[in-house]
Amino acid sequence: MSQLNETHDPALKSWVASANQADSAFPVQNLPYAAFRRRGTQEATRPGVAIGDQIVDLAALAAIAPFEGAAATALQACTGERLNELMALDSAHWSALRLALSRALREGAALRGRIEPLLVPQAQAEYVTPARIGDYTDFYISVHHATAIGKQFRPDNPLLPNYKWVPIGYHGRASSIGVDQRFARPVGQQRPAAEGEAPQFGPCKRLDYELELGVFVGKGNVQGERIALADAEAHVFGLCILNDWSARDIQAWEYQPLGPFLSKNFASTISPWVVTLEALAPFRAAWSRDAADPQPLPYLDSPQNRAEGAFDVQMQVLISTEQSRAQGKPAAQLSRSNFRDAYWNVAQLITHHTVNGCNLVPGDMLGTGTLSGPRPEEAGSLVELSQGGKTPVSLPWGEQRTFLQDGDQIIIRAECTKPGYPRIGFGECVGTVLPAR
Amino acid sequence: MSQLNETHDPALKSWVASANQADSAFPVQNLPYAAFRRRGTQEATRPGVAIGDQIVDLAALAAIAPFEGAAATALQACTGERLNELMALDSAHWSALRLALSRALREGAALRGRIEPLLVPQAQAEYVTPARIGDYTDFYISVHHATAIGKQFRPDNPLLPNYKWVPIGYHGRASSIGVDQRFARPVGQQRPAAEGEAPQFGPCKRLDYELELGVFVGKGNVQGERIALADAEAHVFGLCILNDWSARDIQAWEYQPLGPFLSKNFASTISPWVVTLEALAPFRAAWSRDAADPQPLPYLDSPQNRAEGAFDVQMQVLISTEQSRAQGKPAAQLSRSNFRDAYWNVAQLITHHTVNGCNLVPGDMLGTGTLSGPRPEEAGSLVELSQGGKTPVSLPWGEQRTFLQDGDQIIIRAECTKPGYPRIGFGECVGTVLPAR
Repeated sequence: MSQLNETHDPALKSWVASANQADSAFPVQNLPYAAFRRRGTQEATRPGVAIGDQIVDLAALAAIAPFEGAAATALQACTGERLNELMALDSAHWSALRLALSRALREGAALRGRIEPLLVPQAQAEYVTPARIGDYTDFYISVHHATAIGKQFRPDNPLLPNYKWVPIGYHGRASSIGVDQRFARPVGQQRPAAEGEAPQFGPCKRLDYELELGVFVGKGNVQGERIALADAEAHVFGLCILNDWSARDIQAWEYQPLGPFLSKNFASTISPWVVTLEALAPFRAAWSRDAADPQPLPYLDSPQNRAEGAFDVQMQVLISTEQSRAQGKPAAQLSRSNFRDAYWNVAQLITHHTVNGCNLVPGDMLGTGTLSGPRPEEAGSLVELSQGGKTPVSLPWGEQRTFLQDGDQIIIRAECTKPGYPRIGFGECVGTVLPAR
Repeated sequence: MSQLNETHDPALKSWVASANQADSAFPVQNLPYAAFRRRGTQEATRPGVAIGDQIVDLAALAAIAPFEGAAATALQACTGERLNELMALDSAHWSALRLALSRALREGAALRGRIEPLLVPQAQAEYVTPARIGDYTDFYISVHHATAIGKQFRPDNPLLPNYKWVPIGYHGRASSIGVDQRFARPVGQQRPAAEGEAPQFGPCKRLDYELELGVFVGKGNVQGERIALADAEAHVFGLCILNDWSARDIQAWEYQPLGPFLSKNFASTISPWVVTLEALAPFRAAWSRDAADPQPLPYLDSPQNRAEGAFDVQMQVLISTEQSRAQGKPAAQLSRSNFRDAYWNVAQLITHHTVNGCNLVPGDMLGTGTLSGPRPEEAGSLVELSQGGKTPVSLPWGEQRTFLQDGDQIIIRAECTKPGYPRIGFGECVGTVLPAR
């Protein structure tokens, strides 16, 4: 998975001019996938691949069958409503399709005349989740987040003894995952005002976002069979951005002893685009821990995983409010962070998830958990930025926030950049809080 | 939902003679659903309804379209591989199909000649899960179980302050749910032998079963909209038996702070048959708490729910081992229990799950959590029966168990009985432990 090939040549340009602009998220070196239809139509959704500000309609492309071999097989798996059938193939097929698309979208490609009529402008598209997500698992891989939030829930015991051994995870709710979500503030039980009283009940008062990445499972495994660390990335189709909204007051009251439930499952917003692991290959990074940290158990450790198990993905959280939008102000940055700082990496999550024989299915999604960085300004949630609601965050247009208010919109962006290589962007994950019903 | 009608007439007999035997689980008053095919074939699975020792092939029945109105609509929803399409209809359609099937399967029915060729003996059938299960939520509704297990995990704090207010639940793994499962003993991390050491790693040494019922969601709700308590049961298709296998040593090490994960998601076994709420109507029971317990918050409380929110379902757990099977011994009872003793009821689970706007989808399954009764011999798991592994359980053929050994088979049965009414059986939930890989 780590080998670079001709699709990673930084000099490649596309015949779609917008893909060649320096600020494009989607140059020909990226080629992320989504499931889309033209906005406002009743068309069936279908897979597409981004190039500049356009989408190649892969179902339409499959109908003209321009590729051969494994690329043709992979393209024929792009005729359904989502990407599950493509995800269910193996990395050799994904790689063959990427190479064929790269060649077909380069300057001078012979296929230009046949593909150009199949382009749909992104400005005219609407999206659904890239896959039918069967199971959603959320992890907790930022030690900085785990420590910060642990201090608030368990001041005397922030980081539990298992944290540095077990990639802590729990099951989330798949049905409420969506793209570009607008959701009502959740209602529920909250801690009693005084011990022994009845709990409070009403709209959440401590609504928060969580900056995460989502990992889409590609090829699955048979129930009972583990996925070894060396094979793990071959089961990963790609990454998206994830905002795992959290109702902190509901969570504090309900989460013992079995974990978060209604505090998390009312909505989880993802970006429409899935960036493949192959597109991220130039941004691999060494995975390392502090010298004082224990080395992982053997099933979660290998020299190759240490050498390049991490990814250098920069993330940014922005907020706009009813007031800022009314005043025409741009969204304001709340924090920045980097996936590279996580305590566990993608391959380790796949291997840990299956060590007991649990079967992963194509289209399943794993969340990383909140990706807070080591510095306070890299916190991936408001509960961290506001220190549990005690220190309001000031916004440039004069408002303050401890937690989210109705009308607030959270925008998460992610991208990979380095000198001499085109920007590999993830697009945006956008969600908006509506008043409680 | 609580009204009795002509389908509940205890005097009804079927032209399928085996349905009329006193020990039949599936008299004409029951009519549970499953998804099946003939064993050993590559046929597509399809919905069926049980009558005596036979299955009416509902896809084949739909092809001859013998019903009219809502029953015909409901029957046409039985032509897929599972029951999701039927579940997605509403209780009026389920009720119409039940009435039509009851009339068609009664002694003297004019349709006998057309239906008899569509019967498949249960002895020749194999089953899949009744629905494609999108999301699986497990609750924790037995206060007796919560107290007993809480004592083992938190001796000083067995029942947490939220328990009597919040129907505690968490998300489980849908992909690893199956019928008649044979699964390898899970492998994973367990507590370090001494504080500060590395965790232990290997096959689970404290493998357990959990006696539960599963609740199949019928009609779903739109994300953001709650289901009121008065409407909740109209969103429930029916109940099955569930064994939520648990690796207690993996659980003890991993579960803080986000709940059980790999300790639960390697396998969950259900019975193939779903008994509808309408079939259970004669076995409704008052739902009550101790006088010292708090009344539920208003969204979880109504006079009707108190009057008949519970169901009188008797459950029995049995074990057979390699030794007992080699000696031809019958399976031995481990415990008995009754669903009526649970602290929360079905309608409350649906309403609580959606109070925050979480969307339920047809075919989703809710587990009740381990249904231990108030007496020690009614414990629904070995960790309770053996008091945390300290007191072995003696089996009639001379073996002892604290936790499950390879080759052990757990059989859970459930049924409703009362004088003057035919037995409403759930069939069996059967799972077998294989050696770790």
